[in-house]
Amino acid sequence: MYRVGIDIGGTSIKIGVVDDALQIVRRSAIPFRCVGGEAVAAMIAEEIHKLLAQEPKIEKIESVGVVLPGSIDKTQSIVLDAHNLDFHNVPFRAQLQAQFPELQVYLANDADGAALAELGRGAFEGCKTAVLLTLGTGVGGGVILGGKLFSGGTGLGAELGHMTLVNGGEYCTCGNHGCVEAYCSATALKRDGIRAMKAHPESLLAKKSGGDEALIDAKFVIDCAKEGDETAMAVFDAYVDHLAAACISVVHILDPEVIAIGGGVCHAGEFLFEPLRRGIDEKCFFSEHGKIVPAVMGNDAGIVGAAMLALNA
Amino acid sequence: MYRVGIDIGGTSIKIGVVDDALQIVRRSAIPFRCVGGEAVAAMIAEEIHKLLAQEPKIEKIESVGVVLPGSIDKTQSIVLDAHNLDFHNVPFRAQLQAQFPELQVYLANDADGAALAELGRGAFEGCKTAVLLTLGTGVGGGVILGGKLFSGGTGLGAELGHMTLVNGGEYCTCGNHGCVEAYCSATALKRDGIRAMKAHPESLLAKKSGGDEALIDAKFVIDCAKEGDETAMAVFDAYVDHLAAACISVVHILDPEVIAIGGGVCHAGEFLFEPLRRGIDEKCFFSEHGKIVPAVMGNDAGIVGAAMLALNA
Repeated sequence: MYRVGIDIGGTSIKIGVVDDALQIVRRSAIPFRCVGGEAVAAMIAEEIHKLLAQEPKIEKIESVGVVLPGSIDKTQSIVLDAHNLDFHNVPFRAQLQAQFPELQVYLANDADGAALAELGRGAFEGCKTAVLLTLGTGVGGGVILGGKLFSGGTGLGAELGHMTLVNGGEYCTCGNHGCVEAYCSATALKRDGIRAMKAHPESLLAKKSGGDEALIDAKFVIDCAKEGDETAMAVFDAYVDHLAAACISVVHILDPEVIAIGGGVCHAGEFLFEPLRRGIDEKCFFSEHGKIVPAVMGNDAGIVGAAMLALNA
Repeated sequence: MYRVGIDIGGTSIKIGVVDDALQIVRRSAIPFRCVGGEAVAAMIAEEIHKLLAQEPKIEKIESVGVVLPGSIDKTQSIVLDAHNLDFHNVPFRAQLQAQFPELQVYLANDADGAALAELGRGAFEGCKTAVLLTLGTGVGGGVILGGKLFSGGTGLGAELGHMTLVNGGEYCTCGNHGCVEAYCSATALKRDGIRAMKAHPESLLAKKSGGDEALIDAKFVIDCAKEGDETAMAVFDAYVDHLAAACISVVHILDPEVIAIGGGVCHAGEFLFEPLRRGIDEKCFFSEHGKIVPAVMGNDAGIVGAAMLALNA
């Protein structure tokens, strides 16, 4: 049998047909447009029916799961807020269910879906306790407890990017100061790169960008650091120290078997992971800790995680 | 049937006989002395046999549990380090087991025992997900997941006092900078009280102490704040803000049904809890969160938690 996994993002909707081995056997993508929940559900249904015109046909589908970048209510039915999709209090599970009355439909946050995908056939395979941190525009993540996706003690889920890292520190988009996201997101690395570029006109960071802020992003800072620029290196070192301290909070409350780090910043590879592991070792209260590894599911995480929601229910 | 619970501290050993309703039906205490694991086990056995000379007698005892202030190995058998007891790599479970060959013996960290006691008949009754933070010389705590004491994903347990609160901030006794313990322990409140007393000779803090550091502790700072001293109030406000930020990290990773706060600082009552809840509300990413309450088991937490280890196994 097969399951359909849907990964809705701000620009596109990715749809996949996933087999029992969690492999994506067929896939498709359509543009996302802010046309409201019902219209989006109809567009998705149309595309799924197109996809299932060939084998495996709809009769072989067991369930439909969807993940999206937003907060979901405790009943896993209503999208409370998904700013990029302009979904606010949208009963999206019911809207999609109406398109597939014969099938069970599941809804989850995309970071939770990504953690589930790592559990299915990625960095968390075989784990009971594991945590995913995704470093992008913000910092998200998901928590695996007891070998299942954890949806929070009261059903609110995890907001790992809003754990405290430097209480009273840098402003965070949530309105607080000093959240993990305000130090460990790609946005934070970019912010600190721009500041350092301005303060150090002699740096490679300044020379390569020609002082143009718009040219500087996380990758730009990492590339300059890799080339040995002291200014960029100082920014990157501070970034890694903060990320290590964020991981340390996770280690000291859950002692996970694996912490996986995902998101664009991870493309830095061992240039990131080697000092990150060293920083965590130095800060760790225990003499040992679980593994710190890159997330492996990448662009397929959403589709696979969405398809797995039925298995986690 | 009954269970024996033993709570070993740096100055005394408390022993209780606990019934099925988790009530302590008989109790006793003997002084603790640093005489090594075997001798301590023998002293405890002697006292237990004295206690059980009357009803309920030893035949009615199902198990013996012991909690102590130290780190325990993954097999819950060996005390790796308990500095106050001078126990280092002591196979204390086996040593106590040798005294009670007929009974199952259990060993745990005292903060874990306290969390278990709150689950049994305290602040966590009926909870699946709950976290205890104890504010004393250090900051300890225990985590309840799935309605049981959580011993960590790799068996190392939780060290909530060493989660990150202000990365790079105040020195912590663990060697790190900026741990929760370095801001939220009674020791930290005392440290900041002494600093403020020196900086503000006009304050009540300075006048009441006569500039004598030795007179200032957490309670002294809280009492001055309660009397309206602006200097003490500023210290206390900062303390509460840090404690709220520590709770926020817990809320954003586990979303617990209840966070209970224990330890001496809690005697401040609503003077602490009212601004603490306000601080957490302000910092919380979610529009709601679990309850923030005082721990209720107090001095009985160790005995009851130790007796409950058999139930949790």
